[in-house]
Amino acid sequence: MGSMSEGVTQAVIPLAALIGIVFALIQWFLVSKVKVLSGNISENGSFNQRNRLIVNDDEEVGVDPDQLVFKCAEIQKAISVGATSFLYTQYKYLAIFTAIFATIIFLFLGSVKSFSTKSEPCTYNKGNICKPALANALFTTIAFLLGALTSVLSGFLGMKIATYANARTTLEARKGVANAFITAFRSGAVMGFLLAANGLLVLYVSINLFKLYYGDDWEGLFESITGYGLGGSSMALFGRVGGGIYTKAADVGADLVGKVEKNIPEDDPRNPAVIADNVGDNVGDIAGMGSDLFGSYAESSCAALFVASISSFGVSHDFTAMAYPLLISSMGIIVCLITTFFATDFLKINGIADIEPSLKRQLLISTILMTGGIALVSFTALPSEFTIFDFGANKLVKNWHIFFCVSIGLWAGLVIGYITEYYTSSAYSPVRDVADSCRTGAATNVIFGLALGYKSVIIPIFAISFAIYVSFSLAAMYGIAVAALGMLSTISTGLAIDAYGPISDNAGGIAEMAGMSHTIRERTDALDAAGNTTAAIGKGFAIGSAALVSLALFGAFVSRAGIEIVNVLTPKVFIGLLIGAMLPYWFSAMTMKSVGSAALKMVEEVRRQFNTIPGLMEGTAKPDYATCVKISTDASLKEMIPPGALVMVTPLVVGTFFGVESLAGVLAGSLVSGVQIAISASNTGGAWDNAKKYIEAGGSEHARTLGPKGSDAHKAAVIGDTVGDPLKDTSGPSLNILIKLMAVESLVFAPFFATHGGLLFKFRYHDEEEDENYGVLVLERVKVTEECLERGIAVCKDGALFRKIGNMIRLFFLKKSMADCIAKKKKRMKEFPLLKAKFQELNENAKARFKRMKEAVAVNLNFKCGIP
Amino acid sequence: MGSMSEGVTQAVIPLAALIGIVFALIQWFLVSKVKVLSGNISENGSFNQRNRLIVNDDEEVGVDPDQLVFKCAEIQKAISVGATSFLYTQYKYLAIFTAIFATIIFLFLGSVKSFSTKSEPCTYNKGNICKPALANALFTTIAFLLGALTSVLSGFLGMKIATYANARTTLEARKGVANAFITAFRSGAVMGFLLAANGLLVLYVSINLFKLYYGDDWEGLFESITGYGLGGSSMALFGRVGGGIYTKAADVGADLVGKVEKNIPEDDPRNPAVIADNVGDNVGDIAGMGSDLFGSYAESSCAALFVASISSFGVSHDFTAMAYPLLISSMGIIVCLITTFFATDFLKINGIADIEPSLKRQLLISTILMTGGIALVSFTALPSEFTIFDFGANKLVKNWHIFFCVSIGLWAGLVIGYITEYYTSSAYSPVRDVADSCRTGAATNVIFGLALGYKSVIIPIFAISFAIYVSFSLAAMYGIAVAALGMLSTISTGLAIDAYGPISDNAGGIAEMAGMSHTIRERTDALDAAGNTTAAIGKGFAIGSAALVSLALFGAFVSRAGIEIVNVLTPKVFIGLLIGAMLPYWFSAMTMKSVGSAALKMVEEVRRQFNTIPGLMEGTAKPDYATCVKISTDASLKEMIPPGALVMVTPLVVGTFFGVESLAGVLAGSLVSGVQIAISASNTGGAWDNAKKYIEAGGSEHARTLGPKGSDAHKAAVIGDTVGDPLKDTSGPSLNILIKLMAVESLVFAPFFATHGGLLFKFRYHDEEEDENYGVLVLERVKVTEECLERGIAVCKDGALFRKIGNMIRLFFLKKSMADCIAKKKKRMKEFPLLKAKFQELNENAKARFKRMKEAVAVNLNFKCGIP
Repeated sequence: MGSMSEGVTQAVIPLAALIGIVFALIQWFLVSKVKVLSGNISENGSFNQRNRLIVNDDEEVGVDPDQLVFKCAEIQKAISVGATSFLYTQYKYLAIFTAIFATIIFLFLGSVKSFSTKSEPCTYNKGNICKPALANALFTTIAFLLGALTSVLSGFLGMKIATYANARTTLEARKGVANAFITAFRSGAVMGFLLAANGLLVLYVSINLFKLYYGDDWEGLFESITGYGLGGSSMALFGRVGGGIYTKAADVGADLVGKVEKNIPEDDPRNPAVIADNVGDNVGDIAGMGSDLFGSYAESSCAALFVASISSFGVSHDFTAMAYPLLISSMGIIVCLITTFFATDFLKINGIADIEPSLKRQLLISTILMTGGIALVSFTALPSEFTIFDFGANKLVKNWHIFFCVSIGLWAGLVIGYITEYYTSSAYSPVRDVADSCRTGAATNVIFGLALGYKSVIIPIFAISFAIYVSFSLAAMYGIAVAALGMLSTISTGLAIDAYGPISDNAGGIAEMAGMSHTIRERTDALDAAGNTTAAIGKGFAIGSAALVSLALFGAFVSRAGIEIVNVLTPKVFIGLLIGAMLPYWFSAMTMKSVGSAALKMVEEVRRQFNTIPGLMEGTAKPDYATCVKISTDASLKEMIPPGALVMVTPLVVGTFFGVESLAGVLAGSLVSGVQIAISASNTGGAWDNAKKYIEAGGSEHARTLGPKGSDAHKAAVIGDTVGDPLKDTSGPSLNILIKLMAVESLVFAPFFATHGGLLFKFRYHDEEEDENYGVLVLERVKVTEECLERGIAVCKDGALFRKIGNMIRLFFLKKSMADCIAKKKKRMKEFPLLKAKFQELNENAKARFKRMKEAVAVNLNFKCGIP
Repeated sequence: MGSMSEGVTQAVIPLAALIGIVFALIQWFLVSKVKVLSGNISENGSFNQRNRLIVNDDEEVGVDPDQLVFKCAEIQKAISVGATSFLYTQYKYLAIFTAIFATIIFLFLGSVKSFSTKSEPCTYNKGNICKPALANALFTTIAFLLGALTSVLSGFLGMKIATYANARTTLEARKGVANAFITAFRSGAVMGFLLAANGLLVLYVSINLFKLYYGDDWEGLFESITGYGLGGSSMALFGRVGGGIYTKAADVGADLVGKVEKNIPEDDPRNPAVIADNVGDNVGDIAGMGSDLFGSYAESSCAALFVASISSFGVSHDFTAMAYPLLISSMGIIVCLITTFFATDFLKINGIADIEPSLKRQLLISTILMTGGIALVSFTALPSEFTIFDFGANKLVKNWHIFFCVSIGLWAGLVIGYITEYYTSSAYSPVRDVADSCRTGAATNVIFGLALGYKSVIIPIFAISFAIYVSFSLAAMYGIAVAALGMLSTISTGLAIDAYGPISDNAGGIAEMAGMSHTIRERTDALDAAGNTTAAIGKGFAIGSAALVSLALFGAFVSRAGIEIVNVLTPKVFIGLLIGAMLPYWFSAMTMKSVGSAALKMVEEVRRQFNTIPGLMEGTAKPDYATCVKISTDASLKEMIPPGALVMVTPLVVGTFFGVESLAGVLAGSLVSGVQIAISASNTGGAWDNAKKYIEAGGSEHARTLGPKGSDAHKAAVIGDTVGDPLKDTSGPSLNILIKLMAVESLVFAPFFATHGGLLFKFRYHDEEEDENYGVLVLERVKVTEECLERGIAVCKDGALFRKIGNMIRLFFLKKSMADCIAKKKKRMKEFPLLKAKFQELNENAKARFKRMKEAVAVNLNFKCGIP
């Protein structure tokens, strides 16, 4: 037992969550003080109410400030309406999906024990009685729904805040870059804190509510809670994929005609796709990313909780230790809260050059503070020594081991963030080399960009591997789960920085569309450029944590499925690995093709409007924004289904037909392959984007030799940027979810797969079981038979299936002596040549004896169970 | 025993090889009948000897045929000289590498038993005495040198033939497309048959020579023979990488300035990089590919032979069954020989439209015939039932199982070939979609191309997985090895088709440079277009077989390293997987960047020449071809070293410092990840190439709306094609070698790693060994001690190390009873929670007793061994 009592834990967690929510609301209040009022617009376009708060806009000489505010409000409203309407439409689809999938979860998990309402002996907490599988099925379904709801809420709130803040940032930019920065940053913080606190609170409340039913059956309780992670992540999948396709179809479409063909600037109001593009930023980069990171957070918590529940915490019912993952998250909220003040109050920025350092400082400060926070939580909440479930064995772990695991995850995240920055910021040589390669055209730009992406994989993979090795060695799969949690513990700050990017991007777009002055554009551009880099860092973070989370989920899955070895040297596992490694390619092919096709449609529409609407190019006629919004909406909703189905269906098919070992292979394969593609895709895209910006900005002698805008090198850079769009914002980040979601889905369905899975091999398995029993019975022939019979009968009395009895007998044998463990599985037996040889030596006589004996057992059992 | 006697086997194999060589020489003779004589050129450019054979060139009205022949000869000579000089320079580097690496092999393998010249008990063939490890080290080194030499020879001969045939194909094109086709195809066949027959013969002779020393020690014999595969593959690495960088630097450089900037056609003699480009085709696509496929062939044979040697064939010394892989290859030569007649005699082509079907028919015919051939060999050479070594166990296999394994490999190869064709030929919708996407510019073209490549991975991976599953299930790792061999059994035909491509490409180049008529160009273009598709098929083949070969080698490696389980659930293996999956990205980053940088240099040089040589553009002045050749040569030689080092050093570092299990993880990871990148890279590149050709050719209504040459869509297509160049010809195909080479290197060094490897964990292992012995001794405490002592002493008498005694004791325990197998390794023990718990229950008293006993054993052993 740690020094923190259960009562304190029960108070601390909701308190931290509430502090987070209150803090978010305060930030929102501060942002809302910037007034953007469109008022009641009368017919002639003037408006009744004036914005009295903006007094400092002396720079906008010659422009009617009211007119500007009005325009901004109008654009903001268009973006907000577009985003809201898209999300509502998307949610309709998601509601159908959620209903179907909830039913599948309930039916599949319920079928594990044939919908029996009888309580069962626990699997791990030996000798105790646990709740029936049907209850687990029901509560898992509820948790799934809660997770889905929270995820959707997180994304939706994020989008609302972002669309609330974008025009305000634009307007604040008139007062100076510092004010605009603070507005954008505060808005990001609203999202970050709301999401983190919300996720924590819902999880906390669910656990406590579920506990009312489950009581001391923590195995069942935390098994059910895993549904929360699945719900969160499956919404994130569609959010990321749908949002990603939406935003990039609009972006690529807008750029291809606007920038490349018509030579009009980005976000020019004459471009019909411009509103769709800005809506896309909010539904893809804000709502999608919010759901994604919420998913990671929920999954790593669930993985850690599940492993803990079958470890000594769970057995001894030490609630504080169990709640360690929640306490880490609570501490994270507090730490991030303090960190935020460094940006908004302690170390205010003074100019454009301060923006990027200020954001990067956030990461460093939160990491340093959090390290202390982790130490505090680890040494107060955890007992100084305890055991962790380690694939069948128990591993002795000390509380400082766990401190190291969480910290290494946290710091590995920072390393990944900084390496990502190195490869995607134009301040360093990699992006400059890419920019330089534009001299010889788009082809070399693409070649160098792809090479950069491939190269950027190296150090993050080593960092992740190091974190895995250390945390795994110290605390097995629990170590991995808490390392992932460590990486995500500063999620509020991470999200604040991440959300800051699209808000600034939108702010710039609004400034352009509202026709604001060059100075304002320069300020919002500076905000945006910093946002690009931090967005790349955020993606690196998301991928790194996804890798750890997936591995933790993978570990929880194999534990729950009762697998102790996943041997690459068996064909089932190996082809699983191979096919798993292929899935990210299949998935990427789908999403990229979707973006490509949707962009083509968008291009045609934009071209059509330029060709058919007279005066559009001259700015005298308004484009038809709505059609473009509709194209993006329709395309993304239609195109998100096949990749979504691939991810959701694969674990079900593999688990059901090929069994848990093949599934374990698939998960491992998709993890090790997906993480590489995700990192390289998002860094390649980020580098191309910033190489283009580097040439456009012309900030150095070198950059000026490549530019200006419109030069051949710049055109080549734009092509690279466009290619990078789907890579960095659609297929790359969606892969995070692919690997996480397949793992969490496998975890949730593990009992089903373990019981009914591997249909294709059922017949062969049956043979193997015969052999297996044979082996065991040979060893324990005389002594065991009677006891085994009794054991079988005991189970039988509870109305269990014949299969169940067989399992219990096997289990009993397992306990019976040391020797019989070698015969636990036929596969295992293969590994012991001498043992196998021994069995093969047995003569027909022994086999016959065994057969007679087995028949006797069967007859007896059948008799007692009332089977004819 | 099969029905074929050893004598027949010993006659059949060299006979088949000789038939192959004679056939190749006949083909060469037929090609040489086309005379290309540059004669003794006098000062004024006329020449003395006339080519009397060409009589039919009535189409070249107005062009002096002598002048044409002279020009062709001149160009051919320039290409041949360039290629030869590059290969010679490359061989100098390779000689240094080979010498160093041969020394490493000898020293590392020699150190396994401390360079002892004493014979040892065999590892697998229990009870027999095998040759000393030092002999194995020596013979492995010799085999390595032989493999390297044969590989270099294969590449060099291929290049010689190709440069001999290219101008002849051009000249034959004047007589009609059928003649040109037959010339190009025959030349390809020369290479295919020479390489296959050569590889078989050298391997056969080596085995028989090595047998003179090894006698009945087949374990040592076939362990040493694995060096042959390593030698072949390591040369292939540098051939592929160096050649790939050479050819693509020249190609990209030539295209970027010539086609994109100067708007001159491909292979225009005014382009200074044109000779380098044509030389590149020969050193990269011919010599590199020849070495690559020879490597695959050698490796799959070695893997099959090694697994067979430790199976029942080896133990019972059934030479015919042992030589089964060689017999399959022999049959392959005969089958391919017959197949060739279908192209050159039975089903002659009549026009352009017949070319591609004729080449594709070759694949189908050889596959069908070979299936019969496999049946014949399988049912005559193999005993009807035998056992195969299966990671510690023995698996009962029937001869028809093996027939299925080989056949499934063969047919999987065909499936992969046809799928590759579907995705890369402009006759089908995928390439047409890519071409269509060029409407909206280069960016969508690149996006669609990448998506196509990703998508094209799906079916080949399923085909490979199916082949792996079936062959593994039927005959464990031997099944995989012979499946790979099956895929490669029609290598002569495959190579003939493959080599046909670059020869036709060169022929087209020569026609352009010699200023031949449009009709001739059209014919060579048609040959070339078909060659592009078959080249893509060839690459698919190479990758598919590489995957199977690598897996077979991987299996042989784990067998040889004594690993029975590679458990993904251990951190060492998992991070191995993760890092292994990263290596192909690292490697691709290096090679792509190399091509990019070299191409940039080439572009600068070509631009410089256009700018500084007056009259170059007008065709009145000659460009300086030599400087461009030098740039490609220097770049490729310099740039091939880092990726080469990555591949060669990784297994050594991982094996030495992290041990065999991590290495197994790395191999599996790089295999499952590398095969995907390789397939997608080469198909993406092939598709872009053919999309461009599709637009250029304008063969359909759709194509004409995109063209003609020089249209915006065509320009976009050219950018895609250029991006694809390094993907399809450098990084993609080199990845084959990465995965194969790391596996074969691990196999060769396996005894070293097993003995001295895992340095970083040595200290921890030591602890584990203590525990382990403890466990065993507890089980067998009283009974075993004396016997174990005797056993130790027996070994000690042979002068073995103390470590060796320990191993023998452990081995002895292992044999002693069934129960002790569970304690074989500490890691294994972890998997048995109950066992571990039991051990933990033992009190201090037992530990002390054990310690005393162990000390007594040690003292006794030390005494007998004369250790103070």
